[in-house]
Amino acid sequence: MFFRNIPGGMRMAGTGTVTELEVHDVRFPTSEQLDGSDAMNPDPDYSAAYVVLHTDGGPPGHGLCFTIGRGNEVMAAAIRSLAPYVVGRPAPAGAADLAALHHDLTHDSQLRWLGPEKGVMQMAAGALVNAAWDLAASRAGLPVWQFLAALTPEELVSLVDFRYLSDALTPDEALALLRAAEPGRAARAARLKAEGYPAYTTSPGWLGYDDGKLVRLAREAVADGFGQIKLKVGADLDDDKRRLRLARDAVGPGIRIAVDANQRWDVAEAVRWMTALAPWTPHWIEEPTSPDDVLGHAAVRSGQPVKVATGEHVANRVVFKQLLQAGAVDFVQIDAARVAGVNENLAILLLAAKYGVPVCPHAGGVGLCELVQHLAMFDYVAVSGSWEDRVIEYVDHLHDHFSEPVVIDRGRYRAPTAPGFSARMKPASLAAHRFPDGPVWRARQRSRHPHGEQEVSV
Amino acid sequence: MFFRNIPGGMRMAGTGTVTELEVHDVRFPTSEQLDGSDAMNPDPDYSAAYVVLHTDGGPPGHGLCFTIGRGNEVMAAAIRSLAPYVVGRPAPAGAADLAALHHDLTHDSQLRWLGPEKGVMQMAAGALVNAAWDLAASRAGLPVWQFLAALTPEELVSLVDFRYLSDALTPDEALALLRAAEPGRAARAARLKAEGYPAYTTSPGWLGYDDGKLVRLAREAVADGFGQIKLKVGADLDDDKRRLRLARDAVGPGIRIAVDANQRWDVAEAVRWMTALAPWTPHWIEEPTSPDDVLGHAAVRSGQPVKVATGEHVANRVVFKQLLQAGAVDFVQIDAARVAGVNENLAILLLAAKYGVPVCPHAGGVGLCELVQHLAMFDYVAVSGSWEDRVIEYVDHLHDHFSEPVVIDRGRYRAPTAPGFSARMKPASLAAHRFPDGPVWRARQRSRHPHGEQEVSV
Repeated sequence: MFFRNIPGGMRMAGTGTVTELEVHDVRFPTSEQLDGSDAMNPDPDYSAAYVVLHTDGGPPGHGLCFTIGRGNEVMAAAIRSLAPYVVGRPAPAGAADLAALHHDLTHDSQLRWLGPEKGVMQMAAGALVNAAWDLAASRAGLPVWQFLAALTPEELVSLVDFRYLSDALTPDEALALLRAAEPGRAARAARLKAEGYPAYTTSPGWLGYDDGKLVRLAREAVADGFGQIKLKVGADLDDDKRRLRLARDAVGPGIRIAVDANQRWDVAEAVRWMTALAPWTPHWIEEPTSPDDVLGHAAVRSGQPVKVATGEHVANRVVFKQLLQAGAVDFVQIDAARVAGVNENLAILLLAAKYGVPVCPHAGGVGLCELVQHLAMFDYVAVSGSWEDRVIEYVDHLHDHFSEPVVIDRGRYRAPTAPGFSARMKPASLAAHRFPDGPVWRARQRSRHPHGEQEVSV
Repeated sequence: MFFRNIPGGMRMAGTGTVTELEVHDVRFPTSEQLDGSDAMNPDPDYSAAYVVLHTDGGPPGHGLCFTIGRGNEVMAAAIRSLAPYVVGRPAPAGAADLAALHHDLTHDSQLRWLGPEKGVMQMAAGALVNAAWDLAASRAGLPVWQFLAALTPEELVSLVDFRYLSDALTPDEALALLRAAEPGRAARAARLKAEGYPAYTTSPGWLGYDDGKLVRLAREAVADGFGQIKLKVGADLDDDKRRLRLARDAVGPGIRIAVDANQRWDVAEAVRWMTALAPWTPHWIEEPTSPDDVLGHAAVRSGQPVKVATGEHVANRVVFKQLLQAGAVDFVQIDAARVAGVNENLAILLLAAKYGVPVCPHAGGVGLCELVQHLAMFDYVAVSGSWEDRVIEYVDHLHDHFSEPVVIDRGRYRAPTAPGFSARMKPASLAAHRFPDGPVWRARQRSRHPHGEQEVSV
């Protein structure tokens, strides 16, 4: 094994071959504590279809699809369906390999029929693309944010699939954006390492928590240094008014309080609800309606005074493009595991930069904080060049299952220094939470299906 | 077993229970003849994740997801993930049962994370919803189009999920549309039985066919009574000009020629290409760009002179709503197996009726003609009340694998008379084409994966 320098950054030459794709169905019984409960998701069991790319030399790559329980086995099947595009190819090393892999995973004409570019298949492609980035960055000895920030503007542009984007963003425009940010990269990277990236916390605001717990956790968040918290809303307007008032009283006027409806409303209801909550000055309303409804978000944004955020369920770059073209959002919330991995999120970061809309990543779940911090930090260093009005979501769940968990310090994500994408789960966690036969689930008797026993013949 | 009359139509009382969900992965090696080849799908192997709902009394229900090959096993896994919502419940009989089943299949909060309401999970829900309609209509002794047309306006409205639709269509507006069409139902049903529903054929225009075959099949289509044919375009402009000219010369000015780009273009390219093809007066341009791109379709429609059609890959009713709100399409192309079955297609038919846009269903593949004819005929009888400017796609592939194949007579679909949804495959066809172990595939050695042998550990 040897290193070589090429323009745009240092990385290991491609050595070895991907020999095996390992897929795990891992689930955590989070619904028992109502952690993660919101107006649309009353009882999530945070889960991951977790993948390991093994090679015949060098470290493996790790990636995951996040789900909230049932259906995680479908994600695992989808990942397996993509194995022929990964196993047998040279271990990805640089931008060219990662661009080719992303292309192959998203352009199989037969598999494309199952989307196209959305839902289960897109998330499966994302898990594998992200695992390949973990692998490549690990071999280069760099955390993914730094590995990305070491690529040239030309290499970064080569990673993006511009199909369906050219009416909003051309490769030349993307190149110009990246070149404009290039001179400040080193200074921003140094500042990021020194100060960390701003975070906000959703931990106080789950819908299943009682008022006392909400107030206590909101105060703790401020004491811990967060400048923004988030509450779940959308089930009952009177409850939401009371909870928002309690939270505002607890944190004072100087702390931002975002609210999140998790797609609960139609347009008129969103306008009515947010008009009613506006006196407590929410910072944004997140997912007011269907993530597919570009025109609906635009109507919500223009119909009431609170800023609009969405993205964690937005299926792909084409829908993000339209949200920006339509002036439908004030904040773009990328998710590391919803779209086709780093490459598609790079397209979305570039679109947001073109339209001047801040990116405030969605995180939480299991592993999403670990992954998405790299994308926000790369955005700061090499794309938007700013963290003004930008915050990464933070939820204090399940981090102890990862080998390199996120580190939050005075309300900021500390920049990761370990090589890779921070998405490696501890072997003991994988074994304990394996579904349905790991000890955590065997102990629970699998009583979670709606109709109990049933027969499926295959 | 007994029958009872209730308002809105005759159906069997709910007897029996769904006891088993049978799932088949069935594939046809259509790529060997370049049947179905287009600018995005060069080598489809038409396939189905095929389901049978067994009960402990009365006929079973049949449904399917259509795919074009690889990934059909993912669809099968997704269908199995929904089994707990179907197995063990009373055999669906009337509108209330079918509304409840559709709701349960699309509102599981954990499974919804895998969409929401799009891609693999939505298609899986659609296969089961459609199988339930097949079952209910079979028990009522009616073809699905007639079973639907026997429901009251109130029952039909109760079948629709209006979430995210109310800014475009309210339940009251839907009810008014259906009531307005009610007096003419009997006369239109009689006319439909006498004359059949207008069809067009795509059989001449696959991209893999040479010029001679194109001309010969175009002339045959006209001789067979079709008033409209369709050509695939989008790979090479000069080829498309030549093929469209040849087809126009072959069929004369009185026959409509639609063209279909299968999502090949960005907006500017679509405008440029269709401006160049306009002299040969194409009837519509189908799928000019991404099916997610509402604003893109609106730009294509306003930027060149040819009418715009889309829908076969449109993920759900929310995207159709926006296509109509934005004035982005001249024709709505529902697909029987892309969205969540009859119930969601009913929502789309009502949206199209509200906006006065004709519905021209997508069909072809395997089983899609069989299924979608029922929806178009129901639309004619009980929703839009018109077949002006409306045609169902017809492709002459794979019908002989069905027990009640579509019947085309002088360019029109004959109204089915057999009870159910016409989607029952012959047992011998299922057995022969079972993937990967049926005799058709064993004989082919499964040499269809891009990288040959690979290892997946699970």
